[in-house]
Amino acid sequence: MSEHGKTPVTVLGLGAMGTALVEALLAAGHPVTAWNRTASWAEAVAAQGASVASTISEALAANTIVIACLLDYDSVHEVLDPVAAELEGRQLINLTNGTPGQAREMSAWAEGLGAAYLDGGIMAVPPMIGTPAAFIFYSGSGTVFGHARTALDTFGGVNYLGADPGLAPLHDIALLSGMYGYFVGVIQAYALVGSAGVKAREFAPLLRGWLDAMGGFLERSAEQIDDGDYVTDVVSNIGMQAAAYPNLAQAAEDQGISAELLTPLQSLMDKRVARGHGAEDLIGVIELLKK
Amino acid sequence: MSEHGKTPVTVLGLGAMGTALVEALLAAGHPVTAWNRTASWAEAVAAQGASVASTISEALAANTIVIACLLDYDSVHEVLDPVAAELEGRQLINLTNGTPGQAREMSAWAEGLGAAYLDGGIMAVPPMIGTPAAFIFYSGSGTVFGHARTALDTFGGVNYLGADPGLAPLHDIALLSGMYGYFVGVIQAYALVGSAGVKAREFAPLLRGWLDAMGGFLERSAEQIDDGDYVTDVVSNIGMQAAAYPNLAQAAEDQGISAELLTPLQSLMDKRVARGHGAEDLIGVIELLKK
Ligand SMILES: NC(=O)c1ccc[n+]([C@@H]2O[C@H](COP(=O)([O-])OP(=O)(O)OC[C@H]3O[C@@H](n4cnc5c(N)ncnc54)[C@H](OP(=O)(O)O)[C@@H]3O)[C@@H](O)[C@H]2O)c1
Ligand SMILES: NC(=O)c1ccc[n+]([C@@H]2O[C@H](COP(=O)([O-])OP(=O)(O)OC[C@H]3O[C@@H](n4cnc5c(N)ncnc54)[C@H](OP(=O)(O)O)[C@@H]3O)[C@@H](O)[C@H]2O)c1
Repeated sequence: MSEHGKTPVTVLGLGAMGTALVEALLAAGHPVTAWNRTASWAEAVAAQGASVASTISEALAANTIVIACLLDYDSVHEVLDPVAAELEGRQLINLTNGTPGQAREMSAWAEGLGAAYLDGGIMAVPPMIGTPAAFIFYSGSGTVFGHARTALDTFGGVNYLGADPGLAPLHDIALLSGMYGYFVGVIQAYALVGSAGVKAREFAPLLRGWLDAMGGFLERSAEQIDDGDYVTDVVSNIGMQAAAYPNLAQAAEDQGISAELLTPLQSLMDKRVARGHGAEDLIGVIELLKK
Repeated sequence: MSEHGKTPVTVLGLGAMGTALVEALLAAGHPVTAWNRTASWAEAVAAQGASVASTISEALAANTIVIACLLDYDSVHEVLDPVAAELEGRQLINLTNGTPGQAREMSAWAEGLGAAYLDGGIMAVPPMIGTPAAFIFYSGSGTVFGHARTALDTFGGVNYLGADPGLAPLHDIALLSGMYGYFVGVIQAYALVGSAGVKAREFAPLLRGWLDAMGGFLERSAEQIDDGDYVTDVVSNIGMQAAAYPNLAQAAEDQGISAELLTPLQSLMDKRVARGHGAEDLIGVIELLKK
């Protein structure tokens, strides 16, 4: 703790996200030592009161709590491997986007060096950091989570998922997968109507209204999955849907638009129907994703 | 008009959707003549007051307005081709799901036989028909739309898009594409967390909150597309996203889950970055869908 009761923190990485993290910490009065590979990017946070470390050793020595937010796990290793011995006694919080496997590997590596490890998955874009709209999944060392809590609270809402460091990236990536599916649908929809000269701004309220009307798929599917029941209360069976689905590709073709973004679902639907589940709900295709 | 001022209508097809259409017409007092390939499916609507035509000729002769709602356009042709000459003077409204190309072909075919043609795309599941939650796109003959309007209003909201009969199926399929993208994301998200034993019901509120938070992509992209500007106000550039995107597949792999549903976006992102658009917004990939 600093003399004002605000935990001092080191932040490694001053890209768009790292800079937003530092600004949130500074705004809440936490002393921050910042480091970035390209030193010039540190000027903005220095002007706001951050101490700038000119070497990674200096950054690690400055504080017990070290937050890393770099491009990917490879860059975290590239930065920390040369100073591995200096991690002893540190509490490493890695907010870099990665996979459950990468998080578990890095956790074991850090613990082998005498450091405690907490992984995090940031569910926000940089402008949201420091507002209630942002939240971050954490998993790994509960001790680090408790110790760093006041600092972590400055970023947005927190959700600690448990000791397995892979849980935060798994939840992070599951939400990103949900988001990219949504993005894919929106992109394909605009491409289709655009091919007939329809303005996206005109089509947007129709698309919004339709997705809102169909939104219940999310909650209904959750119940069907947990209950392992894809049969009850089917309003629109996968057999009928699989029969109409080729129209999505054919319509795109007619309009000179690629249908590649939505083709993979077709083969899952067809497989499910071929295996005798045609009268069930679409969500049953989830069984085919399990390898 | 019938003596009560309610337009009499013929409906071809008594599947889940055709039956819902007939029920909405009957509930509003429209005289209905119904026909279905498999006659036994007509019993339910007969009990509710529909006249049942035992042949397709009888069904066509009964009323000027003929609504078709069959499995696909091939089945519509299979039903109508043998009685093509009897279409003269009819107003054919085809609510069967198809592509813009199929609608344009059928419109030209019907007009060649002296029939007027209106195409429709139903944006609802059967239980929604007759409620304000349902709406239907129409395009093609404005005369038919005007003449049939009171009957069509019984199904739900209407949206007449213009004289090109392909416009209704195009809008229909664009909305379905948006919906299936959303479904794909939800399915993949549940598969991922399910692989770690997380209940879908527990994860659902997180997914709902995140999709709500990211929902603005739909409206923001509309402006960017119409303005042809993928550069301004980028909060999270496609270069960074393309670098993190392989984590979606790798995380799935780590957890024994197939990533096939979301892989096509990767190559579009990579292509866009390779062509020098890495600092722009994701929505710029829409350019790569134009063939
Ligand atoms: N931006 C978002 O919307 C967002 C949202 C959620 C999560 N994230 C995650 O947050 C992390 C950072 O994202 P960002 O938006 O800050 O990205 P960014 O603006 O591209 O910044 C990347 C950072 O990583 C550093 N870096 C890259 N390679 C390095 C290496 N080999 N050695 C040392 N440093 C290296 C860069 O240093 P230089 O300045 O020297 O290049 C820079 O500080 C990523 O994992 C990203 O997926 C971002
Ligand atoms: N259900 C929905 O959620 C929904 C939503 C929007 C749009 N739609 C569209 O509405 C249309 C009908 O869907 P539905 O849900 O009613 O499907 P359905 O319950 O499977 O019924 C299919 C209908 O088509 C008839 N049919 C199929 N092949 C035929 C052929 N070769 N000759 C004559 N009749 C034939 C069937 O007659 P038999 O009884 O003799 O088999 C039945 O009346 C489809 O184009 C569908 O895509 C459905």
